[in-house]
Amino acid sequence: MGLIVQKFGGTSVADAQRIKGAAQRVVQTYREGNQVVVVVSARGQTTDELFSLAHEITDNPAARELDMLVSTGEQVSIALMAMAIHAMGYEAISFTGAQVGIVTDSHHTKARILTINTKKIKEELNKGRIVVVAGYQGVDAYNNITTLGRGGSDATAVALAALLKADLCDIFTDVDGIYTADPRIVPQARKLDRISYDELLELASLGAQVMQARSIEFAKKYNVPLRVRPSFNNSAGTIVCGEVKEMEDVVVSGAAVTKDEAKITIRGVPDRPGQAAKIFKELARSNVNVDMIIQNISSHSLADITFTVPKAELKAALEATKRINEEIRAQEISSDSKIAKLSVVGIGMRSHCGVAEKMFSTLADEKINIQMISTSEIKISCVIDEAQAEQALRAVHKAFELDKVRA
Amino acid sequence: MGLIVQKFGGTSVADAQRIKGAAQRVVQTYREGNQVVVVVSARGQTTDELFSLAHEITDNPAARELDMLVSTGEQVSIALMAMAIHAMGYEAISFTGAQVGIVTDSHHTKARILTINTKKIKEELNKGRIVVVAGYQGVDAYNNITTLGRGGSDATAVALAALLKADLCDIFTDVDGIYTADPRIVPQARKLDRISYDELLELASLGAQVMQARSIEFAKKYNVPLRVRPSFNNSAGTIVCGEVKEMEDVVVSGAAVTKDEAKITIRGVPDRPGQAAKIFKELARSNVNVDMIIQNISSHSLADITFTVPKAELKAALEATKRINEEIRAQEISSDSKIAKLSVVGIGMRSHCGVAEKMFSTLADEKINIQMISTSEIKISCVIDEAQAEQALRAVHKAFELDKVRA
Repeated sequence: MGLIVQKFGGTSVADAQRIKGAAQRVVQTYREGNQVVVVVSARGQTTDELFSLAHEITDNPAARELDMLVSTGEQVSIALMAMAIHAMGYEAISFTGAQVGIVTDSHHTKARILTINTKKIKEELNKGRIVVVAGYQGVDAYNNITTLGRGGSDATAVALAALLKADLCDIFTDVDGIYTADPRIVPQARKLDRISYDELLELASLGAQVMQARSIEFAKKYNVPLRVRPSFNNSAGTIVCGEVKEMEDVVVSGAAVTKDEAKITIRGVPDRPGQAAKIFKELARSNVNVDMIIQNISSHSLADITFTVPKAELKAALEATKRINEEIRAQEISSDSKIAKLSVVGIGMRSHCGVAEKMFSTLADEKINIQMISTSEIKISCVIDEAQAEQALRAVHKAFELDKVRA
Repeated sequence: MGLIVQKFGGTSVADAQRIKGAAQRVVQTYREGNQVVVVVSARGQTTDELFSLAHEITDNPAARELDMLVSTGEQVSIALMAMAIHAMGYEAISFTGAQVGIVTDSHHTKARILTINTKKIKEELNKGRIVVVAGYQGVDAYNNITTLGRGGSDATAVALAALLKADLCDIFTDVDGIYTADPRIVPQARKLDRISYDELLELASLGAQVMQARSIEFAKKYNVPLRVRPSFNNSAGTIVCGEVKEMEDVVVSGAAVTKDEAKITIRGVPDRPGQAAKIFKELARSNVNVDMIIQNISSHSLADITFTVPKAELKAALEATKRINEEIRAQEISSDSKIAKLSVVGIGMRSHCGVAEKMFSTLADEKINIQMISTSEIKISCVIDEAQAEQALRAVHKAFELDKVRA
């Protein structure tokens, strides 16, 4: 039939029983007449355990040696996966990132894939073998082992699928597929059969953490169809693909709420050109990722600037802000970490009006105050009080009728 | 000063504390002005644990995938060792067998080293770095990961020392050095300052398991001086080197007793040419390692043949013997696993008479019956009753005055 890349995350290969279960999924796909490339992550908590070993030795391990260490996690998984396939009577062969020529840059612990030499994989596929490749790892130009950062096995799978021109890239996870909202918060949330890369990207960055965002971008760039599937049952999952005409008929595809940001407000900034630039330059220099930014002119030529940063970076952000304020001399700096960001996403927004209006009025009806607003072509986000996050998500989910099946 | 290879076995790197201790030994050697190459084994029981993982998946794992799996054990060790050296403020870099070009044949799980590309190691040494290499592993000509069998880290260390023309190869173990006999059995046993390769080879094959026999042979071939040292204290250990004139003045260097063999006796073999050949051909075909063999003509042209095999192979050996006896038609096959082999070793034996006589009379004085005798140029072994093994070892140790310091 075709060539299918199947990626199993850590929980899907956590122990012998699950590895055997994953091997059955692989063999089933192979028996349906497909060539199969399997990408596996380290088993369960292995990567965390390896990091702990390093920290027993030193507080500050060298990145190159960390990669040498943690890359063993996937190497164990590929060997066990190949054995499990053998035990079912099928031919399989495992490869490390180095063996299969996954060449990355030299940014240890967060390397990016530059090229993959697919020759060896193709040779083995053509021998009728199932090829098992270690996710999350590669080698740089000097043959040093590198790793791709958390979620890096997604990157391996998608890059292999792109370069092998695979017909499909299965991402096996511990969720059933992509939902209109987090089912733990919104019981009426509905699994989507299809979603576009762009919508999933917005959702991924919003905390619906089914896949690494960089991998979704890569899949979009090379137009690799993804299928997010559960590893523990046979449900069909969600296809992630390019836009099709029908998608535009649906105004909103999903909604999400995140609580991992905090907000900083600078009041009374003298309103001269270049003040904002100074602030955000200083924040960038401190490696703070700024998300939403709004600025108002208040009175007497004074501006108020508010922006959000990851909670983990709030301390660094406040320090940077105070540092630059020695120069800017704004009247007051305050922060609030009890906020939530509520977002709705849908490529249909491009051609439909009234989405923002409906979102705002829904929140108003619920007596939820909107602190900040930010919009993109396919997304509207509002910052609200953290205590009202779940209430807001449920209200918006209902207002946009996300529980109803699409036309 | 020079170039020193230092090998740390599994118990010497079992946990973070011991890895740090080993790193201190390495740094000390480096600070004394030497270039240092470190070879490490997998931590403690890691290799056994990895084998267990494989056996949770299948009873019969493919050898290639087993090597892929267990080679991760040393990879973890090299990363942690390099980190520990870094933490002490010194430069170090780790390499897997593949990265450093340790090329082996393709006999997975028991491969032999063919070549090592020492270019990379030399480059790093010349940068002033301590080079940490994974023991026990290599790659074959097709870039498949291979392992060298139990004790394979010794082989890595000795081969590296030979090819780098090292001045010394330190083998750190959990014993103080090489003793005249096992100190647990003979309290008077004395640590040797020096021993020849040949003597240690005979002792290694006799169960004084400080080093893999193949590695000692290799060290002898390339004349690599070895130093067997304790990793947990600073005692000087034992130098293993080529013969020097003074060694010949000492008739017996050490004594050992092993209980890991069993004996098979075939009585009443019709005494025709080729009978013994048939028996041992059949045993070889069954992968049984025969050690000692004796044959007597009893009476009426019937021969008795007795030989020893490892206890673990006794069942297979008996089956093979019975199988071939359908053809040979000897009168009786019996076996005894309650035996011990007592041996004395010394290169001085070559030029001294009366060693055998003294050993036999010592055993006679102790009322210990000798069941079999085998001799080589530098060794005499006697098979005796297992129950008398320790008594015999102590008596022989005393008779040859092994507790007295050499001239």
